[in-house]
Amino acid sequence: MVYIERLKSLIVKKKTHLTIGIDPDASKIPEFFFNEFANPLEEFCKFIIETTIKYTTAYKFNLAFFEYFGETGFKALESSLNFISKRAITICDSKRGDIPNTSEAYAKTYFDKLGFDAVTVSPYMGIDSIEPFLNRSDKLTYILAATSNKGAYDFQLLETRGGKKLFEEVIEKFISSSYKNIGFIFGAGHSSFIEYYTNLYKNIPILIPGIGAQGGDLNKLLESVHNDLFLVNVSRAILYPTSPFVNKEEYKIAVEQLCLDYSTKINK
Amino acid sequence: MVYIERLKSLIVKKKTHLTIGIDPDASKIPEFFFNEFANPLEEFCKFIIETTIKYTTAYKFNLAFFEYFGETGFKALESSLNFISKRAITICDSKRGDIPNTSEAYAKTYFDKLGFDAVTVSPYMGIDSIEPFLNRSDKLTYILAATSNKGAYDFQLLETRGGKKLFEEVIEKFISSSYKNIGFIFGAGHSSFIEYYTNLYKNIPILIPGIGAQGGDLNKLLESVHNDLFLVNVSRAILYPTSPFVNKEEYKIAVEQLCLDYSTKINK
Repeated sequence: MVYIERLKSLIVKKKTHLTIGIDPDASKIPEFFFNEFANPLEEFCKFIIETTIKYTTAYKFNLAFFEYFGETGFKALESSLNFISKRAITICDSKRGDIPNTSEAYAKTYFDKLGFDAVTVSPYMGIDSIEPFLNRSDKLTYILAATSNKGAYDFQLLETRGGKKLFEEVIEKFISSSYKNIGFIFGAGHSSFIEYYTNLYKNIPILIPGIGAQGGDLNKLLESVHNDLFLVNVSRAILYPTSPFVNKEEYKIAVEQLCLDYSTKINK
Repeated sequence: MVYIERLKSLIVKKKTHLTIGIDPDASKIPEFFFNEFANPLEEFCKFIIETTIKYTTAYKFNLAFFEYFGETGFKALESSLNFISKRAITICDSKRGDIPNTSEAYAKTYFDKLGFDAVTVSPYMGIDSIEPFLNRSDKLTYILAATSNKGAYDFQLLETRGGKKLFEEVIEKFISSSYKNIGFIFGAGHSSFIEYYTNLYKNIPILIPGIGAQGGDLNKLLESVHNDLFLVNVSRAILYPTSPFVNKEEYKIAVEQLCLDYSTKINK
């Protein structure tokens, strides 16, 4: 339960449930990063972390955006994790899930080599596809339950023969396993499910994306959460303020203000 | 339908439905690669491709194993794809599936930057999570249906309220969409499902892992396939013959023989 203890103490220390999603999108990173720095991606990530680390409990790294940069992306990911060190929870947002020997390779990379504290996974391939992650008892695995996109209604909310929804079958199956280091992911829009499950499971960490650019209602969400182990993720709405910025100083002021606002609001 | 035409003509030309799964596992690659070469991973992949390309219609690259090598892995992946050029179908085995803007980043990397012909995806997050891949009409997207691991029974084979299994709901949902560039993945052990769906859909490509190290019965599988667009994947059983090898020449003979055996058998 190393993860849960760290999560609890960081939430108390930082006074927020905010997680910042680091999605370095080349088309949105201000141009001066590309003009001024040899490794703009690395510089951008470091800048975001430096500007926000006082106000955030966790960082969620979206691997898609790092992978896009190839070798440079891998280097930026490593240096960002080193730069954070132990000052915040680090979540590898990869949504993997594969046959056991392949999931083991992913787990080795994310937990053993890169040193992430947690990972996000997709449950479609069943428990044995997630076990290599769960076997790291000091780490946490966040399993997709009901997600924030409209596609959530295609399969996750389908009713099974037993009268439950698919994502409820997923939750029950993992909860009834012997693993204790599991958490679930709910899109911010699913506040009634969040209410039900955070009431039922007070000690299960919940990760909630869908606030900010994805348009979720923050107040409604916060009213629905009934355990202390939740994290609310904001990515684009903090990383990419709308005005054009010509230098680091102006950009820093805007990002810091947005981060502080979300940090203060996402607290209860 | 560019992909399907290429697939058909390569199957005829190579006289096989074999796909070789490139899973470069550091603990299984013969030691002499690490002693003799500056970039052993790149050299290993090139060696496997050189030795097998006459006998195989496609290569399936398992991204977990490349990601494990970090920057070096990315370089090896790029150089392997360049080395294959147009001589075989290339499948990116990544099993991604995320909110649309993230899936778009993955699609850009795999299709636009790396130039893969096809990708594997996980359907849990629904159609919009897969659309960025499907929007590349010249490429193919293989969607997980019923997989080869025992975890397939946890959710994929659950019955829904309508009396279908979850993976059948997945197939129907994608088939009834407007996208035509879709294929499905069935583990070799699910021969009755393969029989049913390849009879029903003669023009839908099917990717079948689970033969070789995973222990599937090849003859039973081949009897159950009723369309011409199938590919059977073999990874470890070709890449890693059991005897220890002291040099490239011995290793080449063993890999080539195994590949030729599978190539000849996986034809109908």
